[in-house]
Parts: sequence; structure tokens; C-alpha cells
Amino acid sequence: MKIVIAPDSFKGTITSGEICDIVGAAAARHFPRAEIVKIPVSDGGEGMVDALLAGVGERIAVEVTGPNFTEEQAAYGILPDGTAVIEMAAASGIMLAADPKRPMDATSLGTGQLIRDAARRGCRKIILGIGGSATMDAGLGMAAAMGVRFLDGSGAEVEPTARGLGKIARIDASVVPGEMDGLKILIASDVKNPACGETGSAQVFGRQKGASRQDIAEIDEWIVRFCGLVREATGKDLLHTPGTGAAGGMAIPLLAFFGADIVPGIDLILDAAGFNEKIRGANMVITGEGMLDGQSLEGKVPVGVARRAKKEGIPVVALVGDIGPDYARAYEEGITAVFSTNKAAVPFEIAKQTSKEDLALLADSLFAFKAMR
Amino acid sequence: MKIVIAPDSFKGTITSGEICDIVGAAAARHFPRAEIVKIPVSDGGEGMVDALLAGVGERIAVEVTGPNFTEEQAAYGILPDGTAVIEMAAASGIMLAADPKRPMDATSLGTGQLIRDAARRGCRKIILGIGGSATMDAGLGMAAAMGVRFLDGSGAEVEPTARGLGKIARIDASVVPGEMDGLKILIASDVKNPACGETGSAQVFGRQKGASRQDIAEIDEWIVRFCGLVREATGKDLLHTPGTGAAGGMAIPLLAFFGADIVPGIDLILDAAGFNEKIRGANMVITGEGMLDGQSLEGKVPVGVARRAKKEGIPVVALVGDIGPDYARAYEEGITAVFSTNKAAVPFEIAKQTSKEDLALLADSLFAFKAMR
Repeated sequence: MKIVIAPDSFKGTITSGEICDIVGAAAARHFPRAEIVKIPVSDGGEGMVDALLAGVGERIAVEVTGPNFTEEQAAYGILPDGTAVIEMAAASGIMLAADPKRPMDATSLGTGQLIRDAARRGCRKIILGIGGSATMDAGLGMAAAMGVRFLDGSGAEVEPTARGLGKIARIDASVVPGEMDGLKILIASDVKNPACGETGSAQVFGRQKGASRQDIAEIDEWIVRFCGLVREATGKDLLHTPGTGAAGGMAIPLLAFFGADIVPGIDLILDAAGFNEKIRGANMVITGEGMLDGQSLEGKVPVGVARRAKKEGIPVVALVGDIGPDYARAYEEGITAVFSTNKAAVPFEIAKQTSKEDLALLADSLFAFKAMR
Repeated sequence: MKIVIAPDSFKGTITSGEICDIVGAAAARHFPRAEIVKIPVSDGGEGMVDALLAGVGERIAVEVTGPNFTEEQAAYGILPDGTAVIEMAAASGIMLAADPKRPMDATSLGTGQLIRDAARRGCRKIILGIGGSATMDAGLGMAAAMGVRFLDGSGAEVEPTARGLGKIARIDASVVPGEMDGLKILIASDVKNPACGETGSAQVFGRQKGASRQDIAEIDEWIVRFCGLVREATGKDLLHTPGTGAAGGMAIPLLAFFGADIVPGIDLILDAAGFNEKIRGANMVITGEGMLDGQSLEGKVPVGVARRAKKEGIPVVALVGDIGPDYARAYEEGITAVFSTNKAAVPFEIAKQTSKEDLALLADSLFAFKAMR
């Protein structure tokens, strides 16, 4: 028997690596001769670097500017093929933000510093995860770190923050350093929101980043203005491009000045992990995430995993924290069994205290049940 | 493959018969050639008659006196071998009690009427479940209906209630009708509490029956007195006998005047259901209850089922509502896998609204998982 374990993390409680180990141990206990393949997966949010490196590749630590201009140590990975794997959250993440949060004055500078560091080391391809960001600066800081100059009416560079967006009079992308030439940037993201408006970055994601109602209205307006300036400078109109609303508008300068592409996170990750080769001949694939629901069809890990396994005719089991509304839609994508780790009717605040042991109990019971002849 | 499904009910949400049907349907869907044997089980509380009759035997409806002297329709069962199966709750149950509850003036008369009806029909053996009672009359009403006379100082019969207990001066068991001769009464009960005192019926169970602190103190005292009178009349001292604290003291007159025995409910039920024969050759037994925890070892259904299956070397799976503290003790008794129907971290008030569909989802996923080769 060959068992592939390819889960996302349960956000805030168990990492995907821990899930692989817990489920793998239970499988080995009841099926000691089974081949167990562990593929910790991430959808481009936190944990992507760990998931992609997973024992191969190199980890690079860099001193960067955090979202509120503090000095931070941030790490990224370089895969054996020279591809850099960068998580925006490592340099400009919400976990690094000052308390109370000040998104108006937060910068994505550090993320640009990581990209530039990778480029200087000769990486020609970059996978950039943009989950968990603290910033709403439309990638102003990042692009500035990569060499684009954003100038105010007097020709001085504006501050690389959301507030700076409102002051830009002119964009000068003529001095981007040569190491950026030929750099292929793939943005791992499943967000489909446009840059501005009701479904745009400020109005949909501003609140959770700590923006006030007034901040949100101003930033939304500035992003419209910014996209206009970008169009003047590059001829590209990105205002309504799906995905430009992710991470406070990070994709705008990357698409405009650096020829980046937005790619569904899960497929990037599964490709980089060699998923299709690893599941060959498997009897089952076990996946999982914190919550399986109708939204899981929008590029989340279990469904991405299931779609590929289904093509190979391999059944997929999902072990999840909560089974949420419309979970049954996942059945059409190849998931054939779904189990919750909840062992009692208690609120999440209680349940999360025992999430690892609850997962271990579920996995042990499942393989014990399977082993009954 | 032979699958035996032998669950208790999930109290208040799913009956044991429904559980058999839901789990059986899932098993048949994924293992269409499996032999599926359904044994709805009960531990002597509500549902025992349904569980024991389960398609065989006869159901008898009788007009009885309810706990608060209202007229009630109550049913009991007669098995093909002539054994009557009576639930005290059907005639004297807490569900039939007036609101607000008045345990001081509640009577077990109706239960005695059911026993007498069965005796008149020629039943020589009675299995009496005493779960869910409304009464605290030490079986005074029941025993009176069966022919025992409880007299006050003036020689008049006392009222057949807890209040009546305090007025008894003399007990006359000489006029018990002949149909009671040779009647074997088995009390299905797992309660080990003695008649009185700190762990006695009034102090432990009085509150949930609606007794005030003063009621409890008085009834506790009267039960001591009653046991003294019983000892005078029969020579039997039942004050500290384990099990006499169940159901407001019901076992006291049954043990004293009718040679009854207290038998663990689960074993009575499993014997009557022919459990040992039915599991022969099974690949697994699926059991369940609302909550599996350390207390489940005290005679509850899953552990009773598991102990017997273990002797035959058959693995046991428990599907339960909640997995509670110390559940792992059940593993020593033969349970080898345990699953909760909870599919999300929500309180019971929410979870119970979907308990049937949640069980169906769990069962479907389990057999889908088992069917993966």
C-alpha cells in the first residue's frame, strides 16, 4: 500500500509538516509495510517556503525593513534549480506590524529587498507568496526597492507607504537595475479581486489590516490614481485586472514593470513539489486544511490536490478542522471522504487546545478501522 | 464481510434504530455484498422496549396512572418467549410529570399496573428498565399496585407517594395476588447507589427530579424509616444494598417482597437480543452512544458491547456524539477505533440540529475510506 499525505496547515494550530508526521505515524502503526509519502503543501500563504524547501534547497536570511520600518530578519529559500521562493509575510507580514496597526504608513519595502537579494544571487525565477501582508501600499515599497522611482510634484521620492501613493506625480522605471532583467516572477495567489472599488483591495481587506473607514476610502482613491499613472508610464491598464486586489495591490507594479504573472498558488506549489510524480501508484491521497467548505473550491489545497489525484484515479481523503457549509461541492473535485478532527461539541477556543491530539486520535482510529479485515 | 451495528441511542437526538439504519445504509453503499446485522441496543433506559422488540414480539398498550395521577396510555412489550419488557418511564417517567415537578406527590403506581397486567397475561418473567423515572416514592405506588398494603397508624392505606412513605406504620404483604407467585423480575439497572444517605437516591437524584432541599432531607429520612419497616416485615435489610438508590428507591420493595434481582442493563439486553449468536463470524462491530468517556465503563452500551466482541476477537468501532474525558479507558475493553460525529467547533445547541446528517456523513466517509484499496 502506498499512502500520500499532502495537507495544508490547520491555520493557527498545526503546521502541514506536523500533520504529515501525525497522520504518517498512525498509518505506519496499523500498516507497517505501507509506503508513506509526505508532501506538506501550502497555498502560497504562510508556510510556503517550508513546504517547498521540505528538506531540499537552501535557506537565506536577510536583514530587511519591516512593515513599520523596524529592522527585521527575514528568510527565503532557493530551490536546487535556482528558483527563489519568497513569502511576502516574512518581510512585510501582519505578524511583524506594530500594534496598533498603522496600514497607512506601512511599507512593502522588505519584500522588494528579498526579491533584489535573490536577483543579486543570480536567481532567474522567483515564486512570490503574498499571503498575510500588513501593507496597503500597492507594492510601492517593494517596487522602490527593486529600482522604480515614484516622484512627487517637486521631483523628490515619496515615502514608500500607502500615504505616499497619494503624493505620486510621476513614475520613473528607467533606472531599474540590470539584475532585474530576464527575472521571471510568479505571484502565487488565488485572490481574484480587482485593484479598487467595492471588491477591491482596500474595501475588502482593509479592515483586517487595521485601516479606518476614512483610510480605506482614501487609499481606494489613491489606488485608482496610481493605476492611472501606471497606465501613463507603461500603457497597461490594471485597474480591473483580477488579482491586483491581493495583498494591498502588490501585483500592480509587478505586472506593470516586471512582467510578472499571477499563478494559482496550489499549482505552483504542487508542481514545485513534484506532486504528480510522487502520487503515481498511490492507493490514496490524504489531504486536509483548517476548514473545508464551498470556498475550498477557489484554489485551496485539498481541492487542488484532489483535482490532480482524480486525474490519476486515486481516491482522496480530507482530514479537516471544521467541515463547513457547502463542503459537499468538494466531492465533485475528487474528494471521496471527509473527516473533522472535532471530538466534542465545544467552541473553537476550547477545541484548538487539543487539536494535535485530536488529529492523532482521528488518524489512529481511521487506520485502525481500515486495518479491520 | 459481516458488519454488526449495535449502538445505543444518542440521547435526545437519534434513536438506536435510526443509527442502525443510517450506518447500515452507508455500509451497504460502499460494500454492497456485505452482510449487515442491526441490533439497536439500550442500557435499560428509554428505548429498551423498542430495542428488545425490534421486529419480534408484541406491544401491549395499557391505561395507567401517571406519576401525577393523570390517566396515561403506556405500552410494554412481550417477547416471543413470554418475557415482558417494561420501561418504568412509560408509566412513571419524568416526561409524564406535571410542570412544575412535584416529586413529593408523585407515584410509581403506573409501573406496578404494567407489571400486574403482564402477570395477568401469564408472563412469568419481567425485565424492568427503571431509567428516566419521575418518582421518589421508594416503589410504594408500584408495590401497592402489585398487592402490598402500606398502612398508617389508623390501619388506612397511605397515599402511594413519597409523602405517603412518612406515614407508614405497618406493611402487610400477605394479600399479594397469586398471579405474582413464581414471577421472576429482573431489574435492568447499572446504578450502584444505596437507598439513603449522601450517595442515596434522594440526595443524588432528587434535584434532577425537582425536589427542594427540604424535600430531599425529608424523603431521605423516610426511606431510612421505610427500610426499617421492610426489615421488620421481611427480615431483609436493604438500606445499604447497592442499586436500591436507583429510580427513587424502586428496587427496595421489588427485592424485599418479590424476590427480584438487579442485573446490569446492558447484559440483560444483549442476552435478550441474542447478541453473542448474532456477532458470530462478524468482521467488526459498530457501536455508539451520545458521549463516550471514562464513565462509559460503568455498564454503558459501547463498553458492554465491546467486552463481548473482544471475547470473540472481533474489533469494535464506536461512533459517538462527543468523545469525552478518559475515553481511552474504553480501549482496554475492546474498542479499537472511536469517531465523533461533530463536524465543526460549535456548541451542542448548534451541533444537535444536524446530528443525523452529521452521522450519515461520518458513516459514509468511513466506509468510503475502508473501500479504498
